[in-house]
Amino acid sequence: MIHNDTFLRALRREPTPYTPIWLMRQAGRYLPEYNATRTQAGSFMALAGNPALATEVTLQPLARFPLDAAILFSDILTIPDAMGLGLSFAENEGPRFAKTTRDEAAINAIAVPDMAKLRYVFDAVAQIKRALKGSVPLIGFAGSPFTLACYMIEGGASPGFANVRRMAHARPDLLHRLVATNALAVTAYLNEQIAAGADAVMIFDTWGGLLNHDAFQRMSLATMRDVVAGLATASDGSTIPSIVFVKGGGAWLTQIAGIGASAVGLDWTVDMAAARRGVGSRVALQGNLDPEVLMTDRDTVVREASKVLHAAGPAPGHIFNLGHGIVPGTPPENVAALVEAVHRISRETRAPP
Amino acid sequence: MIHNDTFLRALRREPTPYTPIWLMRQAGRYLPEYNATRTQAGSFMALAGNPALATEVTLQPLARFPLDAAILFSDILTIPDAMGLGLSFAENEGPRFAKTTRDEAAINAIAVPDMAKLRYVFDAVAQIKRALKGSVPLIGFAGSPFTLACYMIEGGASPGFANVRRMAHARPDLLHRLVATNALAVTAYLNEQIAAGADAVMIFDTWGGLLNHDAFQRMSLATMRDVVAGLATASDGSTIPSIVFVKGGGAWLTQIAGIGASAVGLDWTVDMAAARRGVGSRVALQGNLDPEVLMTDRDTVVREASKVLHAAGPAPGHIFNLGHGIVPGTPPENVAALVEAVHRISRETRAPP
Repeated sequence: MIHNDTFLRALRREPTPYTPIWLMRQAGRYLPEYNATRTQAGSFMALAGNPALATEVTLQPLARFPLDAAILFSDILTIPDAMGLGLSFAENEGPRFAKTTRDEAAINAIAVPDMAKLRYVFDAVAQIKRALKGSVPLIGFAGSPFTLACYMIEGGASPGFANVRRMAHARPDLLHRLVATNALAVTAYLNEQIAAGADAVMIFDTWGGLLNHDAFQRMSLATMRDVVAGLATASDGSTIPSIVFVKGGGAWLTQIAGIGASAVGLDWTVDMAAARRGVGSRVALQGNLDPEVLMTDRDTVVREASKVLHAAGPAPGHIFNLGHGIVPGTPPENVAALVEAVHRISRETRAPP
Repeated sequence: MIHNDTFLRALRREPTPYTPIWLMRQAGRYLPEYNATRTQAGSFMALAGNPALATEVTLQPLARFPLDAAILFSDILTIPDAMGLGLSFAENEGPRFAKTTRDEAAINAIAVPDMAKLRYVFDAVAQIKRALKGSVPLIGFAGSPFTLACYMIEGGASPGFANVRRMAHARPDLLHRLVATNALAVTAYLNEQIAAGADAVMIFDTWGGLLNHDAFQRMSLATMRDVVAGLATASDGSTIPSIVFVKGGGAWLTQIAGIGASAVGLDWTVDMAAARRGVGSRVALQGNLDPEVLMTDRDTVVREASKVLHAAGPAPGHIFNLGHGIVPGTPPENVAALVEAVHRISRETRAPP
């Protein structure tokens, strides 16, 4: 069905002729063609909310670089928006919600949204899937239940998400109620993406790393485990592969590897070799080049990419990626150099002597 | 010599009747008396630069709470200021340097500053030491060579210290030259603090956690090892205890525990029990309550403090602290409740049944 299934094979820890690569935020502001479409749409939400335009920007990086997967162009905050919180993106600022979800009454009012309100996302998945014509797999995604709660509680981005951490300590019951509702919503949302054609799904826990160990386990990890356990199987009964990424979760990798996901995403601070020793052969690993490497020069890109590949080692089950999203000012030619280097070096490593 | 030496005993992993406690930024904006002295001084640097006023604010929290150590009131950026970079603090903003140290010429111009330019710091140490009258030990401190380099390169605080990370990848030789010079300066600076009366020293690596594993080892950990190895011994030949704190370093604790410091500081994300299993009995551990706990209520403070104490276990070698500095809006009564709870609960745990 899929012409280049290297990414899916690596997720299953099967041997592949080279290490597959895709990049977080591969469709984004570092590409002039993205900025043109974004301007045409008028706003980020108009872009993400229009399946035809979302398809267009999803495919843009694949037209430039031989990437091994596409990822749905959308935002992690579509779910709280569908819950009625009123998402907007001010120019050059982060996301903003019209309403916050900070007290008991507001949290009790939160319910799993009608998935019909998110139809534009599932339509985008279906349209992208058709446009890909089976070339590479399509990744669907969602924010983690806890990370969604972070934005819902603060009403937007925040340096330390202080209100969230205070609630985790003083009212763990309330925070748990919120993340449990979010977990149901995320599960339904990812399953609709799978039904619409997503070949794999990724859960982004961008802010789990702000919690203390104990609260991380209860508020973030346990709810991601619930989401993974609730994922639909494919029509042939096989499991849809899943990737879980906790930024700042380097100290918790063995626990993260135990929640049932196919792969664990690593941020750039993690020692890939130590991560592999820690998790054994239970999961695939995805990552973990520092995105700032792409802001330097070709030689540095190739050298640092090679380090990541060597740290990952020759065993199957590595998907090359950045340790966080592409930085907006990244020169596209450095991305081209990275994709070429990862494919070439990993092929050479696998070649018989 | 020192009446209450619980802190120093815990640093040596000797049994103590209770768990000693001090708090990062215990002299700071959450105290009305601090704000009064700060206003009187006119600016942060005028406060830190005046030994009499620095002594006054250092002692303020000890007058309120039965803390087990005092820490010099100063700033980690005094060294680059003495190097001629021109430090200032704008109201309600972070530190700013008049000059940045971002290219080869600027880095080559950096030299270990004449310690006479930092005389005001050593005078403050001596004056605080006299004012303490042997009641509790005095902690001296410095920023880590890498963390100083972060501010020198960016010219101030920065969300992701992108220029530093780019230099670490593209020009590791340059960054290494800078951190090596900083390491010599930090060593000399801490030794002058020891000569002036500091009973222990702490190295703050606030930004080491932004580096990838490989760069952290070379640029931050190795240079902190050099600093620790260069610390002066006391007049009786005994080693001055040292504490190294890497914010975001949870995944690297065993390496951090191996650089020769007496203790490792833990941020709030670290599982204290796992940290103890990981480092064994090589070092004392300091930490690691989430500072946002102090922004909640008395019951939450006591419950969360108890969790940290239980995770640390009954073995000697735990110094209670926060996982980061006190938040400015913290109610002082919550700090009082914390200190009381840590002393009481840890005494009860140690009491024979």
